[in-house]
Amino acid sequence: MTAERKVLRMNIREYRKPEYTVDDLFLRRWSPRAMSGEEIDEPTLRSLFEAARWAPSSNNNQPWRFIYACRNTPSWQIFFDLLAEGNQIWAGRAAALIVVVSKKTFDSGKPSITHSYDTGAAWGSFALMGTLMGLVVHGMQGFDYDRAKSALKVPDDHQVEAMIAVGRPGKKEDLPDHLREREFPSPRKSQAQIAAPGVFRF
Amino acid sequence: MTAERKVLRMNIREYRKPEYTVDDLFLRRWSPRAMSGEEIDEPTLRSLFEAARWAPSSNNNQPWRFIYACRNTPSWQIFFDLLAEGNQIWAGRAAALIVVVSKKTFDSGKPSITHSYDTGAAWGSFALMGTLMGLVVHGMQGFDYDRAKSALKVPDDHQVEAMIAVGRPGKKEDLPDHLREREFPSPRKSQAQIAAPGVFRF
Repeated sequence: MTAERKVLRMNIREYRKPEYTVDDLFLRRWSPRAMSGEEIDEPTLRSLFEAARWAPSSNNNQPWRFIYACRNTPSWQIFFDLLAEGNQIWAGRAAALIVVVSKKTFDSGKPSITHSYDTGAAWGSFALMGTLMGLVVHGMQGFDYDRAKSALKVPDDHQVEAMIAVGRPGKKEDLPDHLREREFPSPRKSQAQIAAPGVFRF
Repeated sequence: MTAERKVLRMNIREYRKPEYTVDDLFLRRWSPRAMSGEEIDEPTLRSLFEAARWAPSSNNNQPWRFIYACRNTPSWQIFFDLLAEGNQIWAGRAAALIVVVSKKTFDSGKPSITHSYDTGAAWGSFALMGTLMGLVVHGMQGFDYDRAKSALKVPDDHQVEAMIAVGRPGKKEDLPDHLREREFPSPRKSQAQIAAPGVFRF
């Protein structure tokens, strides 16, 4: 069985116990770090952007922008160098590194309240599509935001939101000890801690 | 055939043409306004929060919070009154109105860079789960943010992000003319406008 199929066949409900009926897709999406170091081809990567593309946004503004570098291409090193050391340890085996950017305005020039939130929805679809494709998709906040903005020439009416590592599943055994111990689907707060009727009570 | 089944059975690819291979789920999620005015029960609503609950977030901070009001409950009017007039026209037939809030800090007190973005990912899962359940899920930015914060007692280390209307599908014919004309799945920018290698070029 390939690593990919193992990820797909994992009995996710051994790790994650939902409180209410929910589709397995949402439980099966998690953020592994073990990747194979293989490349992925352009259409595969574009399928992830395709899922992101159809996300909802205020007034259909679609503020999400994705700038990417594939391994073994000239841009790779620039993207890799943006990462915090703790992410470089494992993300070097990704097939693509992506900087997610949002446009802070509507096309009219009016400021958008929801540009980060809308872009997060697109990122969520990207991640779920990755799960459906048997890929590792791991979001990162551990990188140099200012340097990403200047190195990738992100204009001032746009905002750097996050980075993403995408790759084919690898062996957990190849991770350093401290990461191997964390290589499982993480738990969540209870429903009572995130959803309540009437007024804020968390 | 019930309205719900019609939504599920719509041949979405007549409306939306993906550029690359993508799961139908992402295409099938759209933002109708026609709702039946029926109630939905608590477990049904909780299934939507359950999908949101398993979204990814920086350091698993899970900054998303959902405050909701079901129709025919005392809180309903408070939530409804927050909406802009243009949304009140149709959202009055929702089964639940939800205010989405994000926590701006980690539990350590350290500010979070990605609280809106992470909360957007949770909202994306919420919306996709709604599609899987045959529900109408419609995000809204047209409401009074300041009044939502005060009326729902949202503390200062949290931020109001958006509202959501959830309901059972209704008849397009019951919408006013100007909304009936917009009651179809919306198009999107091209891939070239949202994803590119190397540097920002949009």
